[in-house]
Amino acid sequence: MIPRVVIVGGGFAGLYAARRFAQSNVKVTLVDRQNHHLFQPLLYQVATAGLSPGDIATPIRALVAGQSNVEVRMGDVTRIDLAKRQVQLVEGVLDYDFLILAAGVRHGYFGHDEWEQFAPGLKTLEDALEIRRRVLTAFEDAEKETDEQRREACLTFVIVGGGPTGVELAGAIAELARFTVAGDYRRFDPRKSKIILVESGDRVLSAFEQPLPEHALQSLRKLGVDVRLMTRVTHVDATGVKLGDLHVAARTVLWAAGVTASPLSKTLGVELDRAGRVKVAADLSIPGFSTAYVVGDLACVTQADGTTVPGLAPGAIQQGHHAADNIMAAALGNPTEPFQYRDKGIMATVGRASGIAQAGRLKLWGFLGWCAWLFIHILYLIGFRNRLLVMIQWAWAFITFSRGARLITGARSPEAQRVQPLPEAVKS
Amino acid sequence: MIPRVVIVGGGFAGLYAARRFAQSNVKVTLVDRQNHHLFQPLLYQVATAGLSPGDIATPIRALVAGQSNVEVRMGDVTRIDLAKRQVQLVEGVLDYDFLILAAGVRHGYFGHDEWEQFAPGLKTLEDALEIRRRVLTAFEDAEKETDEQRREACLTFVIVGGGPTGVELAGAIAELARFTVAGDYRRFDPRKSKIILVESGDRVLSAFEQPLPEHALQSLRKLGVDVRLMTRVTHVDATGVKLGDLHVAARTVLWAAGVTASPLSKTLGVELDRAGRVKVAADLSIPGFSTAYVVGDLACVTQADGTTVPGLAPGAIQQGHHAADNIMAAALGNPTEPFQYRDKGIMATVGRASGIAQAGRLKLWGFLGWCAWLFIHILYLIGFRNRLLVMIQWAWAFITFSRGARLITGARSPEAQRVQPLPEAVKS
Repeated sequence: MIPRVVIVGGGFAGLYAARRFAQSNVKVTLVDRQNHHLFQPLLYQVATAGLSPGDIATPIRALVAGQSNVEVRMGDVTRIDLAKRQVQLVEGVLDYDFLILAAGVRHGYFGHDEWEQFAPGLKTLEDALEIRRRVLTAFEDAEKETDEQRREACLTFVIVGGGPTGVELAGAIAELARFTVAGDYRRFDPRKSKIILVESGDRVLSAFEQPLPEHALQSLRKLGVDVRLMTRVTHVDATGVKLGDLHVAARTVLWAAGVTASPLSKTLGVELDRAGRVKVAADLSIPGFSTAYVVGDLACVTQADGTTVPGLAPGAIQQGHHAADNIMAAALGNPTEPFQYRDKGIMATVGRASGIAQAGRLKLWGFLGWCAWLFIHILYLIGFRNRLLVMIQWAWAFITFSRGARLITGARSPEAQRVQPLPEAVKS
Repeated sequence: MIPRVVIVGGGFAGLYAARRFAQSNVKVTLVDRQNHHLFQPLLYQVATAGLSPGDIATPIRALVAGQSNVEVRMGDVTRIDLAKRQVQLVEGVLDYDFLILAAGVRHGYFGHDEWEQFAPGLKTLEDALEIRRRVLTAFEDAEKETDEQRREACLTFVIVGGGPTGVELAGAIAELARFTVAGDYRRFDPRKSKIILVESGDRVLSAFEQPLPEHALQSLRKLGVDVRLMTRVTHVDATGVKLGDLHVAARTVLWAAGVTASPLSKTLGVELDRAGRVKVAADLSIPGFSTAYVVGDLACVTQADGTTVPGLAPGAIQQGHHAADNIMAAALGNPTEPFQYRDKGIMATVGRASGIAQAGRLKLWGFLGWCAWLFIHILYLIGFRNRLLVMIQWAWAFITFSRGARLITGARSPEAQRVQPLPEAVKS
């Protein structure tokens, strides 16, 4: 009988697992709540109006259209029953012989979920469009504002978290304010916007070795980003943030400080780590359930040498491939293999033409670091058309300092309406 | 004293009016509820996943950034007081010496506003994204559906109205179903989708002279569109439409049958036509209020020869320019001039590589008509970057039959959830 494999999640881990099954004798069902695979490393570009959603997202169906053994199902998974080997959806149930769970993580607020409405994080296209709407609307409202203090709050952007997402957001918003919209307003100077990056540790991008974090810090400061190291956010509300005891009035607060596992992990009834990720065995299966694998950001993988695998695209892709290989081996009655992470290096970008990259002993920064970042990201961006379009948009943006996707779309969120009281003229 | 001009609406008429004031000695405030100018002739491409929102929309600020005498204000206009010369916004009031009202039209339902939730029209980017979401979700739901009849309803698309928008939507959805997603589903054949175009008159595209409507009809039928002429929609609800007495079960119904004026026209207290448009004087001003002009789709302009000006982009641009010229003349104490429409011709496209165009005695159809359509639309698409990107996307789509923006984003609308009952498996 042909084994039925269900993959939950169409991110890097899930998608590459599905692709690995090409030409193999298994039947695959790939479930995702979205119809598209997202190139998450460039999501901050959508959030800051540099790219359009269509540039970094591709329909999952189109990506596996050539594999007749893969069926794609758009749906919400609510629960996984490891004992019965069932995936429960809002609309129906899927039975499986093998499971690959790749449901990923969301941003986490360290127990302060009430902060989310004031400080959205960046994981989905909807998140990115909401952030874009808030950032662009802040400038629009600054133009209408007559009270100097409130205008200043409109022009204050606080980004919480000094990892790659926080640094990339801060750099891109700084460029947006200093260059792209610099000539667009008549009642204030957008270049005077405050962009504050808050990091609780003693450096940004702490996954990198020195001197790279130091170079990134210099690049951020050169862009005019006010980087506050060793600083903790103690409160977030509609008026702004508290940094320790200091209140900073800010209309726009963005969250890039932590992640928490997909709530699906709790339905498994197995051992999780503090962030809710599943502690998997060396072969990536769930201990005690040899037919169920967890891969990608949702997996907590401790390797033989005691190190854990970082939550990056290359690790997710390798795990997706590995779980698929192990399932194909198990289906033939062969033993599974332990997963071994091959470190391809890490990289981040800090605004226009500046980045850092680290691979083994190689360290790059500044323009060279940015070139490396650009090359790798274009190379891996799925789909030829997207690569070409993104390259043109970047080239254009680089030459002209303009950003092509500066659109405010979607309804205003309730709290955005709330923080902006109606002026007297309306009440009469 | 420098005259203050307020322009309401950043569509073709309002934007080109604002641009006409470049280097002139007036102070202009351009108000729009959106931050972007929309290239409406290509909006159906966004609705059918061919283009991204960013490709056909440009921030209004960027378009007038070089004109220091123009201020852009994002806001909702609620009322216009012609006697007091005031534009009332949700947030504040603008006084004017001269007004250019270019607030446009919305789709109209001939008194059946309750149909809108089931049959959205296409005027804004949000409309386009909602239609895209519905069309793409219909295919996804067809894949999940187990009941053959309900699946058929998922795969039935009814477009009401045989004007350019209806024809372009029908053609693009037919191509989407027959080519783009043809290989993406496992449980049904998307090529068997039904696309029904309903037109109450005896031909499609009735603004064109024969044989062009006949050629368009043939092109539509070749694409597999079921064109029903002389047919009226008598009812629309969540289950589908009634065509006369015949009920057609359809998940997706799109409205392209009529327009109704912006509700602002009713606040003027002046004479309107049946669709709510303002009957303007020969110089485009409102009779009795020589400082207030109405231009674009919201104006009902009857020319000296008794003909009215069609609601197309060239007419709107000409009127915008003309109102600006008349205001500059009046500000100098000179007389105003009557408006005269220069007919630049009309064109429409019917799917891939087929279109019709008519200019004076010149008539083009088929591939030549499409080339003319393509050339003119690319030429007028505002902003060099957009032109280049759109050209590449079209070239790519033409070669590969793929569509780059097949993303389902945004929340599901309530009635979309309602028409899709949960299967038994969930209730247990």
